[in-house]
Amino acid sequence: MTGELLDISLKVIGIVRNGIKQRPESGWEKIVSEIVVDSRLTEALDGLEEFSHIIVIYWMHRVPALDKVPTKIHPRGRQDLPLVGLFATRAPYRPNPVGETTVRLLERRDNILKVEGLDAIDGTPVIDIKPCIPGLDAVTEAKVPSWVTKL
Amino acid sequence: MTGELLDISLKVIGIVRNGIKQRPESGWEKIVSEIVVDSRLTEALDGLEEFSHIIVIYWMHRVPALDKVPTKIHPRGRQDLPLVGLFATRAPYRPNPVGETTVRLLERRDNILKVEGLDAIDGTPVIDIKPCIPGLDAVTEAKVPSWVTKL
Repeated sequence: MTGELLDISLKVIGIVRNGIKQRPESGWEKIVSEIVVDSRLTEALDGLEEFSHIIVIYWMHRVPALDKVPTKIHPRGRQDLPLVGLFATRAPYRPNPVGETTVRLLERRDNILKVEGLDAIDGTPVIDIKPCIPGLDAVTEAKVPSWVTKL
Repeated sequence: MTGELLDISLKVIGIVRNGIKQRPESGWEKIVSEIVVDSRLTEALDGLEEFSHIIVIYWMHRVPALDKVPTKIHPRGRQDLPLVGLFATRAPYRPNPVGETTVRLLERRDNILKVEGLDAIDGTPVIDIKPCIPGLDAVTEAKVPSWVTKL
C-alpha cells in the first residue's frame, strides 16, 4: 500500500499572483498575494471573508520532482541547525510537493482573495482552500524542538 | 490556467489505521489513529517526535469524485446553520478531496505515528506530514463567523 502511486487529476481551483519568481527561504510573513480563483467557483467563496485566517493548499509546480528525496536534512540548508528527518521540516523537497500554509485573509473581492503570509511563488496552482477554525487548527500550546526558535 | 487539470502521481507515504470504516460528521477529537509510514521513509520521521502537533495531509480516497461539487452548502448538512460557500466549510466533497488536519502526536515508534484527532477513515492514504510550528500555523487570534461556534 505505502509506496504505491495514486494517479489522479488535480483540479486547479486558483492561481497565486504576487510577482515573486524565486522562492526566498524566509521573509514570507509580510508578503501580500492574490489568489485568483476560477470564476466558476466564485460562489463557493461566499462566507470565507468572515474568517480572519484561511488554509491554502497548493501544488509546488516548480519544485523539481526528485526520484529520491533526502530523508535527513539541515532545516533551510543551515549547517548550524541539527540534521533532522525531512518530515520534521517544512522543506519544499518532499515525496509530494504539496504546500500548505495558514494565511491572513485581508480581503475578498468576488473571486479574488488577498492574503498575507503565503509562501508560494507567482503562478502556483492552488488546489484547495479551507477556513482556519481554532480548536481544529489553531493550536495554542504546541511544543517544538529548540532548533525551531533559531529559524 | 484555473480549471486546468494537473495529471500527477501522488506517492502514498503512509496509511491511516484506526478501524473506522464510516466517516462520522463529528467526534474525531479523541479518536486515536496510527499512521503506518512507508518503512523506507522511517529516517525521514527523525525529530518529528519533538513536536507536540503535526499536520497530516491525506487523500480522501473514498469520497466519490463529483464532476460538479455544490458551490454552497449547509455545514455538516445542518439546516439550522447558514448556507455558505463550500470553501468556507471543511466538507469532504471538494474539487480536490485533499484532507488536512492538525493532530496531536502521542508517540512515534520507528515508522508508526500514534496521533489523536485525525478525521480520516481506516485505509486513507497519507501524502504528506509536516511539523506544526506556532507563528506559522498556530494562529491564536483567529476570528470565525458565529455559525462555527454552533458546530
